[in-house]
Amino acid sequence: MKRIPFLLLAIAAVAGIFAGLGPSSGQPDQQAAPAYVTSIPPGYRDWKLISVAHEAGKLNSLGAVLGNDVAIRAYRQGTLPYPDGTIIAALHYTHSPSAENDKIFGQPQSFTPGPPTNIQFMVKDSTKYAATGGWGFGHFQNGKPADAAFMKPCFPCHAREKAHDLVFTRYAP
Amino acid sequence: MKRIPFLLLAIAAVAGIFAGLGPSSGQPDQQAAPAYVTSIPPGYRDWKLISVAHEAGKLNSLGAVLGNDVAIRAYRQGTLPYPDGTIIAALHYTHSPSAENDKIFGQPQSFTPGPPTNIQFMVKDSTKYAATGGWGFGHFQNGKPADAAFMKPCFPCHAREKAHDLVFTRYAP
Repeated sequence: MKRIPFLLLAIAAVAGIFAGLGPSSGQPDQQAAPAYVTSIPPGYRDWKLISVAHEAGKLNSLGAVLGNDVAIRAYRQGTLPYPDGTIIAALHYTHSPSAENDKIFGQPQSFTPGPPTNIQFMVKDSTKYAATGGWGFGHFQNGKPADAAFMKPCFPCHAREKAHDLVFTRYAP
Repeated sequence: MKRIPFLLLAIAAVAGIFAGLGPSSGQPDQQAAPAYVTSIPPGYRDWKLISVAHEAGKLNSLGAVLGNDVAIRAYRQGTLPYPDGTIIAALHYTHSPSAENDKIFGQPQSFTPGPPTNIQFMVKDSTKYAATGGWGFGHFQNGKPADAAFMKPCFPCHAREKAHDLVFTRYAP
């Protein structure tokens, strides 16, 4: 009982959004496990910035959301739905106090990325991922992908953001 | 009296580090005002990610630190001092609760960038900015640069980070 909410939270972190909810009632249980992303898209660390995010509470996460060129173009032009080829990457770190900065500041105030916790992806391929709204979701820890059970709640949570083609993160100018 | 600490804080935000201090005693008052950055380096919003930062307290800032290619190469290779041509950009926004995300999460937890507050730069040019450790500092609000008085505390604060060539922000992998 305690593990499921944690998994949901960790998975939903892909777009800086989290839900303590089970799969939506619209998803029949007998459906085949949705396809998800099992390999890290190459070059993601060189992609451009979409936004940043801080998740407090148990997640205690500080993150950067990056996009490949297709994603950045769509964000800047306001293209919806996102075109095939869009990839959004969320790089998560612990939200850690910076003793070095705080010493100069004179009070606890500064938080910087601690160790990386996970990297998450949303890959748009309306054919391959037709069963999950055209998006493949990915979650990697130490370079290794999560399993199908771990990934299953991603889609029903993101499906609640239908008005933005299942993407929670907005572009920071 | 109230304005000065705020200015100092705002200026030092360039590297996610803040100090409620006056100019260091090592800087003679009769020195000419140090040169600083008065135009926004073109293309900065397309630069690669160095790190992210959250400053709590009065600053209430969520930021992304980006670097041009010279900066990214130096960071990744651990080059110190940073070579001439290095430019580091800090994009600051308010650290704002996301009502949309919190609604799905079921509790106040999610913070995303609110309106942009300022953009700051560190430009390495060991000749032009010889008087300030080889770095030109810049602070822009609504596209307009701060004045010389506003910029004066940047260098003495950053000079405390001599071991990292006056740069506070570390690379997030």
